[in-house]
Parts: sequence; C-alpha cells; structure tokens
Amino acid sequence: MLRKENVMKKRIAIDMDEVMADTLEALIDRYQNDFNIEIDRTDMEGWHLEDYVDPEHKQKILNYMMQRGFFENLPLIEGAQETIEKLHRDHEIFIVTAATQLPHSMEEKVKWLNKHFPYIGWRNMVMCGDKSIVIADYLIDDHAHNFDGFKGEGILFHSLHNAKETRYKRIYAWTEFEELLNSSLSHSIQT
Amino acid sequence: MLRKENVMKKRIAIDMDEVMADTLEALIDRYQNDFNIEIDRTDMEGWHLEDYVDPEHKQKILNYMMQRGFFENLPLIEGAQETIEKLHRDHEIFIVTAATQLPHSMEEKVKWLNKHFPYIGWRNMVMCGDKSIVIADYLIDDHAHNFDGFKGEGILFHSLHNAKETRYKRIYAWTEFEELLNSSLSHSIQT
Repeated sequence: MLRKENVMKKRIAIDMDEVMADTLEALIDRYQNDFNIEIDRTDMEGWHLEDYVDPEHKQKILNYMMQRGFFENLPLIEGAQETIEKLHRDHEIFIVTAATQLPHSMEEKVKWLNKHFPYIGWRNMVMCGDKSIVIADYLIDDHAHNFDGFKGEGILFHSLHNAKETRYKRIYAWTEFEELLNSSLSHSIQT
Repeated sequence: MLRKENVMKKRIAIDMDEVMADTLEALIDRYQNDFNIEIDRTDMEGWHLEDYVDPEHKQKILNYMMQRGFFENLPLIEGAQETIEKLHRDHEIFIVTAATQLPHSMEEKVKWLNKHFPYIGWRNMVMCGDKSIVIADYLIDDHAHNFDGFKGEGILFHSLHNAKETRYKRIYAWTEFEELLNSSLSHSIQT
C-alpha cells in the first residue's frame, strides 16, 4: 500500500452521464414503460438508445432528457460513490459534464451532485460543451470524442454505445480505475 | 492590417459578469431604487458593492443575485458585442463564468448569451467554479484570483472592485483588448 505522503496528487476530471449517473438505465426504463417493448442490452453494443430504437421513437427518447426532473433523479453507476470518495481524499476531483446544450439540466445536475457527492463543492463542478477546454491529468468519460484535443490521459468508461471503440484504455467498473491509478502512481514514484 | 491567413488562431476565454454583462450596474440600480441612496462610484474603488454599503444592507445585495431573472436581464458592457464578434471571426472564443455557486443562474446565463451573442454555441460555454480547470491562451476576467493556476495570460478587465490590483495587464475597455491582441499577434508572426 502507498503511504499517503508518497501519493502524487493528480487532477482527475470525471464525466457525469453514464460514468457517475446511470442515464442510459433511466432512459431504457422510461422507454420500456411507455412502449411496453423489452430492450435487449446485449444487442445494443455500438448504439445509443435513440438510434437503436424504431426511428419513429427517436424523438421520444430525446424528449425524456428535455423533461424537468430527469437529470435530478438519475440512479447511480455502481461503485461511483465509494471510489470517488476515496479518490477525493488524495486527489483533486473535477466533475466535467457536457450540459450547456440542455440548459435546464445544469441546475438539476448540481442538485444531484450535492445529494450523492456532498463533499464536491461548486468550485469543482464544470458544466460545458467542448471538453477540450479543461486541463487535467485524467478525464474519465464514456464518449471518446471528448478526448480529442484533451492534453491529459483519456480513460474510456465502458458503456454499450462505446463498446466498439478501441483507441483508449477502457475501464468496466470504478474499482478498475482505482487499480489503474494506484499502479501508475507507484510507477511515477519509482522513476 | 494583418491578412487573415497570417493570423495565429488563439483560444480566448472570456468571463461574463462585469466583463460582458454589467452586473454591477444592475446591482447599483436595484439598490439605489430600493433604498433611495445615491452610490458615488468614484468612492467605490477597491470595493465590491456588498462590502461598500451599510453592513445591514449586504445581504440585500447578495439576495438580488439569488432572484430568478436577475442574470437573464443584465445590460451589456460597452463594446463587448462588437469586439467579441470581431474576435470570433479569427479566434476560438470560450465564455467561462463562475456560475455553479448560484445554480439557477446557469440557465439564465445561457439565455442571455443566446440573445446577445447568438453565434456562440453551447459547445463554447463553460459554467464553472475554480477557473484553473480551463486551458486557453488568454483569460479576460475582472477577478485576479481567477488567474491563480491559469496557464495562459490573464488580462484584467477593469472594474471598480479591482482598481487597486497591480499584478496584471489591465484593459479599461473592449477596444483595448483588440489592440493588445493585434500587437502581440504581429509580434509572434515576425519572430
């Protein structure tokens, strides 16, 4: 185990949707409920839900995200609370979410963060569009396009829609990021 | 005059309050109206309005900013529209505003930007807290503390509260930034 004083403090930028908050699960839930159609997740690899469903239903999915309350009530991704709290003790955590496209979502996202991650203050929240504006050692995100122009290391958080992306280090669960960070920290301390 | 193909594209981050939007003027207007007290601006140098007024009135000033609609209806800083539109033709503009502390303000700020700066899309808006998270060539801001940890060049936009700050290049008006940028661009092309 690393002794705390040997830990090199990193700045870790973390995306919200499908990384901290299970946005996809909330969308599938509403869609299945409204149309009484069972979604087969194993068949959804490489697809966003709105492009996977019947084209006539695409707008319905997009509308769910426009509804007030949607982003305030999202379920958590497994392990996010535990791991991010641990990371927060030794590192600088910034939550970086593409949110300016849906302006009503921003207030809801702050409320959601305050509820589930109360130790992350407003100073460490970033609601943006193009993430190339942020500077951090790591960016954990489910969208590979957010790594374009990013100066740090992009870590792809596994999601059905990005299952076929091969260019980046991928983690399937929060515990994997903790391991990855510990091993790369050990390395940088030894060299 | 520089020919367009010789212009080095810069990324310019621009703060909103007291740089694009005249937040102070809106606060003074409401305060004078509510208390029938005339504010002498020449006496306010080095002070934020909430610290300059009678201590009993401080919370009243802070409350103005909590009211829905305040940030949506701010007047413009002189020259901001004209100069930013010109800069936008040759450079990459990001609007970077500390807004996550007042979550309701974010939706209003996007509406205000869409109204007065319609060519700035959601991709180029950043609502944040600690601005050391952004990477840009320039940051134009009225708060010197936002230059702490900023990797580019901080340009202080003159405001009464920052009148006594001497550490940074100061501009008193938008036209001055245009001149400054043109002169530094000419320089970097020649070297």
